[in-house]
Amino acid sequence: MEFKPTDSKETPRFAGISTFFRLPYVADPSGLDVAIIGVPFDGGQGYRTGSRFAPAEIRRVSSTIKPYNPSLKINPYDYLNVADVGDAPVNPLDSAKSRELIQGAIERIVDAGAMPVAVGGDHSISLPILRALARKYGSVGLIQVDSHLDTGDNYFGVKYGAGTPFRRAVEEELIDPNKWIQIGIRGPVYAEGDFDFVREHKVRCLTMDQIYTNGIQWVHEQLDSLKDTTCYMTFDIDGIDVAYAPGTSTPVPCGLTSLEAQMLIRQLSQFPRVVGFDINEVQPEFDVGSITSILAALLTFEFICTRAVVKRNKA
Amino acid sequence: MEFKPTDSKETPRFAGISTFFRLPYVADPSGLDVAIIGVPFDGGQGYRTGSRFAPAEIRRVSSTIKPYNPSLKINPYDYLNVADVGDAPVNPLDSAKSRELIQGAIERIVDAGAMPVAVGGDHSISLPILRALARKYGSVGLIQVDSHLDTGDNYFGVKYGAGTPFRRAVEEELIDPNKWIQIGIRGPVYAEGDFDFVREHKVRCLTMDQIYTNGIQWVHEQLDSLKDTTCYMTFDIDGIDVAYAPGTSTPVPCGLTSLEAQMLIRQLSQFPRVVGFDINEVQPEFDVGSITSILAALLTFEFICTRAVVKRNKA
Amino acid sequence: MEFKPTDSKETPRFAGISTFFRLPYVADPSGLDVAIIGVPFDGGQGYRTGSRFAPAEIRRVSSTIKPYNPSLKINPYDYLNVADVGDAPVNPLDSAKSRELIQGAIERIVDAGAMPVAVGGDHSISLPILRALARKYGSVGLIQVDSHLDTGDNYFGVKYGAGTPFRRAVEEELIDPNKWIQIGIRGPVYAEGDFDFVREHKVRCLTMDQIYTNGIQWVHEQLDSLKDTTCYMTFDIDGIDVAYAPGTSTPVPCGLTSLEAQMLIRQLSQFPRVVGFDINEVQPEFDVGSITSILAALLTFEFICTRAVVKRNKA
Amino acid sequence: MEFKPTDSKETPRFAGISTFFRLPYVADPSGLDVAIIGVPFDGGQGYRTGSRFAPAEIRRVSSTIKPYNPSLKINPYDYLNVADVGDAPVNPLDSAKSRELIQGAIERIVDAGAMPVAVGGDHSISLPILRALARKYGSVGLIQVDSHLDTGDNYFGVKYGAGTPFRRAVEEELIDPNKWIQIGIRGPVYAEGDFDFVREHKVRCLTMDQIYTNGIQWVHEQLDSLKDTTCYMTFDIDGIDVAYAPGTSTPVPCGLTSLEAQMLIRQLSQFPRVVGFDINEVQPEFDVGSITSILAALLTFEFICTRAVVKRNKA
Amino acid sequence: MEFKPTDSKETPRFAGISTFFRLPYVADPSGLDVAIIGVPFDGGQGYRTGSRFAPAEIRRVSSTIKPYNPSLKINPYDYLNVADVGDAPVNPLDSAKSRELIQGAIERIVDAGAMPVAVGGDHSISLPILRALARKYGSVGLIQVDSHLDTGDNYFGVKYGAGTPFRRAVEEELIDPNKWIQIGIRGPVYAEGDFDFVREHKVRCLTMDQIYTNGIQWVHEQLDSLKDTTCYMTFDIDGIDVAYAPGTSTPVPCGLTSLEAQMLIRQLSQFPRVVGFDINEVQPEFDVGSITSILAALLTFEFICTRAVVKRNKA
Amino acid sequence: MEFKPTDSKETPRFAGISTFFRLPYVADPSGLDVAIIGVPFDGGQGYRTGSRFAPAEIRRVSSTIKPYNPSLKINPYDYLNVADVGDAPVNPLDSAKSRELIQGAIERIVDAGAMPVAVGGDHSISLPILRALARKYGSVGLIQVDSHLDTGDNYFGVKYGAGTPFRRAVEEELIDPNKWIQIGIRGPVYAEGDFDFVREHKVRCLTMDQIYTNGIQWVHEQLDSLKDTTCYMTFDIDGIDVAYAPGTSTPVPCGLTSLEAQMLIRQLSQFPRVVGFDINEVQPEFDVGSITSILAALLTFEFICTRAVVKRNKA
Repeated sequence: MEFKPTDSKETPRFAGISTFFRLPYVADPSGLDVAIIGVPFDGGQGYRTGSRFAPAEIRRVSSTIKPYNPSLKINPYDYLNVADVGDAPVNPLDSAKSRELIQGAIERIVDAGAMPVAVGGDHSISLPILRALARKYGSVGLIQVDSHLDTGDNYFGVKYGAGTPFRRAVEEELIDPNKWIQIGIRGPVYAEGDFDFVREHKVRCLTMDQIYTNGIQWVHEQLDSLKDTTCYMTFDIDGIDVAYAPGTSTPVPCGLTSLEAQMLIRQLSQFPRVVGFDINEVQPEFDVGSITSILAALLTFEFICTRAVVKRNKA
Repeated sequence: MEFKPTDSKETPRFAGISTFFRLPYVADPSGLDVAIIGVPFDGGQGYRTGSRFAPAEIRRVSSTIKPYNPSLKINPYDYLNVADVGDAPVNPLDSAKSRELIQGAIERIVDAGAMPVAVGGDHSISLPILRALARKYGSVGLIQVDSHLDTGDNYFGVKYGAGTPFRRAVEEELIDPNKWIQIGIRGPVYAEGDFDFVREHKVRCLTMDQIYTNGIQWVHEQLDSLKDTTCYMTFDIDGIDVAYAPGTSTPVPCGLTSLEAQMLIRQLSQFPRVVGFDINEVQPEFDVGSITSILAALLTFEFICTRAVVKRNKA
Repeated sequence: MEFKPTDSKETPRFAGISTFFRLPYVADPSGLDVAIIGVPFDGGQGYRTGSRFAPAEIRRVSSTIKPYNPSLKINPYDYLNVADVGDAPVNPLDSAKSRELIQGAIERIVDAGAMPVAVGGDHSISLPILRALARKYGSVGLIQVDSHLDTGDNYFGVKYGAGTPFRRAVEEELIDPNKWIQIGIRGPVYAEGDFDFVREHKVRCLTMDQIYTNGIQWVHEQLDSLKDTTCYMTFDIDGIDVAYAPGTSTPVPCGLTSLEAQMLIRQLSQFPRVVGFDINEVQPEFDVGSITSILAALLTFEFICTRAVVKRNKA
Repeated sequence: MEFKPTDSKETPRFAGISTFFRLPYVADPSGLDVAIIGVPFDGGQGYRTGSRFAPAEIRRVSSTIKPYNPSLKINPYDYLNVADVGDAPVNPLDSAKSRELIQGAIERIVDAGAMPVAVGGDHSISLPILRALARKYGSVGLIQVDSHLDTGDNYFGVKYGAGTPFRRAVEEELIDPNKWIQIGIRGPVYAEGDFDFVREHKVRCLTMDQIYTNGIQWVHEQLDSLKDTTCYMTFDIDGIDVAYAPGTSTPVPCGLTSLEAQMLIRQLSQFPRVVGFDINEVQPEFDVGSITSILAALLTFEFICTRAVVKRNKA
Repeated sequence: MEFKPTDSKETPRFAGISTFFRLPYVADPSGLDVAIIGVPFDGGQGYRTGSRFAPAEIRRVSSTIKPYNPSLKINPYDYLNVADVGDAPVNPLDSAKSRELIQGAIERIVDAGAMPVAVGGDHSISLPILRALARKYGSVGLIQVDSHLDTGDNYFGVKYGAGTPFRRAVEEELIDPNKWIQIGIRGPVYAEGDFDFVREHKVRCLTMDQIYTNGIQWVHEQLDSLKDTTCYMTFDIDGIDVAYAPGTSTPVPCGLTSLEAQMLIRQLSQFPRVVGFDINEVQPEFDVGSITSILAALLTFEFICTRAVVKRNKA
Repeated sequence: MEFKPTDSKETPRFAGISTFFRLPYVADPSGLDVAIIGVPFDGGQGYRTGSRFAPAEIRRVSSTIKPYNPSLKINPYDYLNVADVGDAPVNPLDSAKSRELIQGAIERIVDAGAMPVAVGGDHSISLPILRALARKYGSVGLIQVDSHLDTGDNYFGVKYGAGTPFRRAVEEELIDPNKWIQIGIRGPVYAEGDFDFVREHKVRCLTMDQIYTNGIQWVHEQLDSLKDTTCYMTFDIDGIDVAYAPGTSTPVPCGLTSLEAQMLIRQLSQFPRVVGFDINEVQPEFDVGSITSILAALLTFEFICTRAVVKRNKA
């Protein structure tokens, strides 16, 4: 089987069954280097749900993402077998069950030797993904682009949700706080104590205030420290400013530009030990002209390209 | 292979790769009774294009159409092998080439012994479909739900487009005017002469004025005359009132209700010799809450159910 | 000069400078039978303003209204000189001044011997129009399609606005309550006393309750009594159900269908003494697919056709 | 305290803190005849969530609903103490907990001697409401306007949700199947067996097919049989056609008109023993011009008016 | 009474009666440090009205603004009594009357010893607010973020409106031109003479051209000169680029980013003598995903935080 | 005749027949310095069509663009006769014919001695414009703002379309590759070879990567080299970031800000030999609050101002 996108100079981008980047759909991840999986679960959201519709919409508009990345000088599909493996099974009425199902789907990818690239869904999906990865990699580093810390203890008395995944991940030793960088964090928050967890665990929390003052280059420098770490990237689309990404569950103004975000992801082409990626909290119903979904597709593509560069560099 | 929809009580309706009615996607129509095919071509439109995006959107929302039709007391998938065969190849920059490609795709379905159910696209798609059917059936009857006659000679000097397919079809002897009923026609039109063609060819043109006066039952009676005719159904969504179907290429107020349209299609369960169906001119970008696409999906499903009833009755 | 629409089989409907029905724009109403004038004033509205944008939007989509009316069997432009005379001057910051300006613009039309057809704007525009007509015709009959009575005494202590024009018109003897029919009225209203004015003046107020019970034919019969009366028609788009006309200033569910409204207007082809028409309260920003603006354009066209039929019958 | 709406001829309808019908907000239901309560819970939905935002939106647009009902000739606030008691507490991450919280909020209303009028939220909210009512009234009759049966056993293996409330209610003896009428039911459904439950329990299920054939008057006649029954009304907005109510969770074409629905509710002015009401499944993000929310507000108002008529009749 | 927001970790952000920042609603400003008041008046607008709906929408989405500001390290509600005092009375049909009513409402706040924070409405609301403040403070300094000068003499011959408030304010000696800084001004304008007024009065007009050239730090430096001045801040949302704030009355591209605006407001934490604030010209109907309203809420919150910092510093 | 815009302080910006910048509409370009022409052709687009509606929408919102440019210190209408000459004739069903018609319309402008300023339509319109210009100027320089190279050889086997105009223009010697600068180019692209054409022809292709690294000032320096060249400017709105211009045919994130684009155009006030301009690929149906159309109008105005500055400098 050839893992190449349909050629949009021959088959128009609006035609055909929608898959991520017009890649083949395969139910079985065997033989893949990268498995793109939709995770249409939004039951962890406390404000606007609807990211359950994001995988379908991102698939649809990902047809506009062409295969050659001139910045990284690579067509990732020349180096990697990449496919759409469909959506993880989820249960919209049962969050605990959904986490199990998602974890199972990711484990299946990991066990097949492929890297999971997950398209959410809300941010609660990162926890079952990290659980699946931990089985193979143990505790990993984390690169988190986000407006929110997502280290709450509970919301409405519930331990699992879109605002708590990374506290749980630390508690479960899925991630190593010393190898964790947060980018784009900004307020307001609930209380001064919201930062206790990241402070106590010495997480490097790079806020928009600091980025405004120190410049984006400073972020690249901070990020460079994880270069050789086994790490995971989780990208909450609300890390980016709402002007660039209006279609999101909890809009927070005053964030990163899309160009800054793109440049940050590209830096991972120098990071040989990244083990997975997710992008989340896209809410298509609040979008305009699908620009948020298109951006999510582009950033996912940029991530995949970095894995191809790493592979090329190894070769 | 089992041609059954994914069960939406197990896999939520927003999850998975989108296909018509969540049926399997098969590239090859062999073994099918009904082949649902997208025809994302809108190059024949003189006003609002964008129906190129309709097959994708109708696929997406067709997941809400459950499999059992309590009115006709049938699950069509119990009687028929139905599948999504993907989209017909089209060339958005070359209308003549697109007509050829569409005709080829339909011929492939017909040659495989399946009935084509086409989801447009604009109304110009009916001509290549009728050409493909004529190879097998010769000149057929026509049931046309539409606000427009679509019997123009040319627009902007061009013979082929969304406003002329059925004049061409008569000229090419693909349809038999004596076995042609138009339902939902209404003005304004360009000129008194617009009706010359249907008058001269004795087409039964049932206008909204007449339907308002005579009642919908009268339409059922008229339609009954085609009961035993080899005929094709073409459904322009603008036959329905814009309140029910706002997402269309050329909105025309004062049309049929969706309930009336549904009842008319169901009548075809008494018509054993129908040979194909298309629905067209859905324009997703002008829709609200996807109600037009959902209606198009439902009407397509109702049509498929009528074929299952016919098969059951034969058995 | 020839007062014919641009031919949309030669120049596409989306092309060119927008005028009502693609008719010529003439600043001077001399020589016209019917002068279509935009009245972009919404300063009388107490809820959603924005009908100031309606003339522009209705002009834009009126390009979809073709010139031949098959129901009335007439191309009105064969019998009448009709043109777009632009917009009445208005002052968005001064309602009293706007009423003067609108009255002046209509007087100019009436003085030139043309019939004014006004596209609002909110319902307060009817008062200055009636004032202009009264100079020539004295007190006239009134056919009002509306969900609201529009006979309030004042809103917020202000005598002139979208809710009071017809009480003012009676007080100023611009309309004759005995020759006044209201169609489509429905509640809720402020108080039982809201109906006092129409009851005391013996206005025939045909409510949706009555229409639901008596049938639309009953409305036609009532209307017939004004057949030979010098009368004016004012059409508030909210007379029609919000499903058919969502883009309006104060949406009121449970109204007329568009088909019923169309039939009612057509009845005026039997009314030789109608002296003017306005349509109002279209709010484009709350519309979907421009269906409300298209409907307003169609109903305006139907009205113009009735004037052409009258002229043809006279000849 | 006076339970009257703010006068919108003095304070514009867009001004002030939003409450249902501009009534006072009171935290405590004591002294009320009718307590309107928002129930912003949508965690039982398997398709489009977002009805959590409906109470806020319906509050906002309910300012357009004036206080006097000319059809029933009543200002309900002259006969009943009605107030907005705010929203029931809910837990968006815990459905079981939410059901408890909702039940508690309704019990508090019932215990205070007021009638609960609930604005959802999804249809799963009816179960905790019925539980609260059963404490006082035992098993009650049910008038259900809906496109769906909502008598499923489970979805995704989960017993409680928007598709199952009334099966649970029968199992828990909260409603009496013999005193249960469903209006507006239509397909497609999952399987022929979907109707087993209502058939076995002899629920009167009035389908759109039957209504199309028998006429709406037949529904009024059927309904009349519950005239003297202690019963509850549950109104799923999708009982109404999507043209009239596009902003809903699971759009189903071919339903009731809004006028028909209004007339049905008004019939309850002859039903002295109705004990509560809910309206649900409004999804504001998929609406246009807020027409669905306005309709929901109007229908809720009509219901309240019927209770005032009953009280007046008793006096 | 405790002036604290409802906790959104317990009561979800979509639940409950909407007030600014989920603070208590109190009709009487007595005892408050800061009174947030809606001013739903848009009768001064010459282009898109609709900002009358902004207070309601900003209230609704302000539930997303959490209480702790990590940049200024403060929860303002720990230092200040802040509440929502509802909307100022306005008369949508009488601008002069509305100005009186608004002035009265602000005077009531000022007289109670509270600082007014007004959420418009259009920019004409600043004049009555300044009049109310002048009674107590005499002529004040002005910090104006805006794309427009708003120093016109009249529009359509009318002296009072959204384009003229600050010329009037100078004429009435409500503001001191020497203590006036405009930020974000950009063209095109009507004529070269549009700048005469600010030039003659030596207003410091910082244009986007200058900001592009000199950098945002230069703006901070200029602003610093008003540090110890008794001054008022007026924030026209169109000072910000339309990408960040599309929902506005008169969109002007090429403005400030939201991050720049946020930083500018925060500088006021060093300004102990600020006496009031307004934000205006948000137009919810032209917004996407409520991002403009959310931004307006956030900027209002940032302003309130600066007052809390000042109070803390004093203590 | 006086070529001045209607004064929007007297006639509101929403009133009157829509023309570009409220300038007079003249069918004949004789006597004009600059002729603004709509080119509503989108038949060259392979993804989202709909830019056929852009000239109408840009006309409508261009009423917000006031006449004096304070940055360039000029009212262009004081120096140049500028008018709206309507739309070029196009044939939506025949691309080849359309190119002929467009070329003819531009030739008519050029022959009349006026400079063409074209508002598309898709990017395929540049080819017939360049053909018309070549008759007078021979091969010209090109300043292209764009996200795409638009130098493809063919799409779907078709040589003429929105992705190929400049390769055709080089082949036909309409433009001189050595005097060609591309600004804003970014990936992904189809293949590494996509850049072959510009590389071989030594086109200066300034990518977003380079602009991010080198700064916008570097672009100004590069551009300066064309200062004294006879050249044409073509502005694809997708050169700008989708946050600023969401309403476009093929959205590409990570582009120029609108402020950067504005500054680049202004540089042309130092370029005395510019011979024409087009702006294209605005897609109104995918826009929010018309911000993309307003931006397109502003940029077109800025270009016209640069021609006025050149004329003033010459005088």
